[in-house]
Amino acid sequence: MRFDVFSLFPEVFQPYLDISILKRAIQNNLIEVHTHNIRDWATDKHHTTDDTPYGGGGGMVMKPEPIFAAVEDVLGAPPSCPVILLCPQGRRFDQKMARELAAYDRLALICGRYEAFDERIREHLATHVISIGDFVLTGGELPALILMDAVGRLVPGVLGDEDATQDDSFSSDGLLEYPQWTKPADFRGWVVPEVMQTGNLGEQLKWKREQSLIRTLMWRPDLLEKVELSEKDRRFLKKYLEETTHDNDAEVNE
Amino acid sequence: MRFDVFSLFPEVFQPYLDISILKRAIQNNLIEVHTHNIRDWATDKHHTTDDTPYGGGGGMVMKPEPIFAAVEDVLGAPPSCPVILLCPQGRRFDQKMARELAAYDRLALICGRYEAFDERIREHLATHVISIGDFVLTGGELPALILMDAVGRLVPGVLGDEDATQDDSFSSDGLLEYPQWTKPADFRGWVVPEVMQTGNLGEQLKWKREQSLIRTLMWRPDLLEKVELSEKDRRFLKKYLEETTHDNDAEVNE
Repeated sequence: MRFDVFSLFPEVFQPYLDISILKRAIQNNLIEVHTHNIRDWATDKHHTTDDTPYGGGGGMVMKPEPIFAAVEDVLGAPPSCPVILLCPQGRRFDQKMARELAAYDRLALICGRYEAFDERIREHLATHVISIGDFVLTGGELPALILMDAVGRLVPGVLGDEDATQDDSFSSDGLLEYPQWTKPADFRGWVVPEVMQTGNLGEQLKWKREQSLIRTLMWRPDLLEKVELSEKDRRFLKKYLEETTHDNDAEVNE
Repeated sequence: MRFDVFSLFPEVFQPYLDISILKRAIQNNLIEVHTHNIRDWATDKHHTTDDTPYGGGGGMVMKPEPIFAAVEDVLGAPPSCPVILLCPQGRRFDQKMARELAAYDRLALICGRYEAFDERIREHLATHVISIGDFVLTGGELPALILMDAVGRLVPGVLGDEDATQDDSFSSDGLLEYPQWTKPADFRGWVVPEVMQTGNLGEQLKWKREQSLIRTLMWRPDLLEKVELSEKDRRFLKKYLEETTHDNDAEVNE
């Protein structure tokens, strides 16, 4: 998988690519990251990449010419791979989209700065517009790194066997992960649950599933609507809800 | 605003703090970022920060002792400020949460690696558990940078007047931003809309609002449910929907 990243701050990417799983993937030639400074394609004396917006409103807008020139110079015209614009008006990035993007062997990422991109970049150059979330950032560099991390991990061979289970959370069943513990069994009097210490595998698997269900119900009930629950899951949740509701009633009555 | 960041890879933060708005905010003493290597508080010979999970399941779990020791050493016990755990099981980060967090004068951020945190960290040390989105990353470092960028921008004085409008997208009205254009008016035959070039302010404001409404309807209809729409907005959307539906019918019938 090759990533071509277009940014005004190409220097911020390298340190994150120099650690951990991405570092190893790059060393093993499973991932390549090429960063390009958009400013190098600005042809005026001051290498201008932004200008004031039509219709006023404050803030600056990224000019179309340098970005078109940069992307077409590196990727041809029209570009030979998907061109992703990172901006808050895009489709929301999630694990499903990460899996879709991991099927390509090359992706271009355009990182904005300033108030906005000139609309012609979105209309005539980008093939995807992706948002990492509903918040305002200074630029698209962190979203691009997030995308490269999440997508890069899914490239075959990047995760060793020991890492492979890390993808459980949002890939397979769509529930939040169950709680985990490691040694010591007793830390400051806070003790690892009995079932995880001494239970048999069947008891532990049942407990983990139930904890995932409880957690998702409590913290991200929106996810439950998208998940395929078994009849057993449904019975457990129903019982859990009845019991907790009953407990609350009891407390109120006391 | 002071951020204390606990991570196994403190070196990845600095390059992003050395550019643009955050750099200026740090130079102007509006923001301080202190990074701490969790490994420095691991007391065994190999500075171990992870171990195998109880109940099996593969992957490694971050041990409680080094993280409690690091956070309590820097922030006291109990810690003197909110302690945020960045992990995919948390409450979803958005602009509203960024505004809430910007009200504190100090925040601690704990970045995980490996499969999970020992549950006792969440239960007995963290005050907030925050997720950047529904995707799997290698660690909490990028989410911590995202949080610092989004929250840091809201610290009074950080955004100069020329940047201030950058927060329009998700702060004020909850709609997606309207499209923007800058010079040249004609780029490869793609021309900036007439109203933005020559319209009067009233026409332009009306057009911008309508474009925001259309965009939100097309790309993020979920946001419309949370927004306070005026009677005028509603009338416009109703008319727009009728017209586009009608157009589609006409096409089908032709």
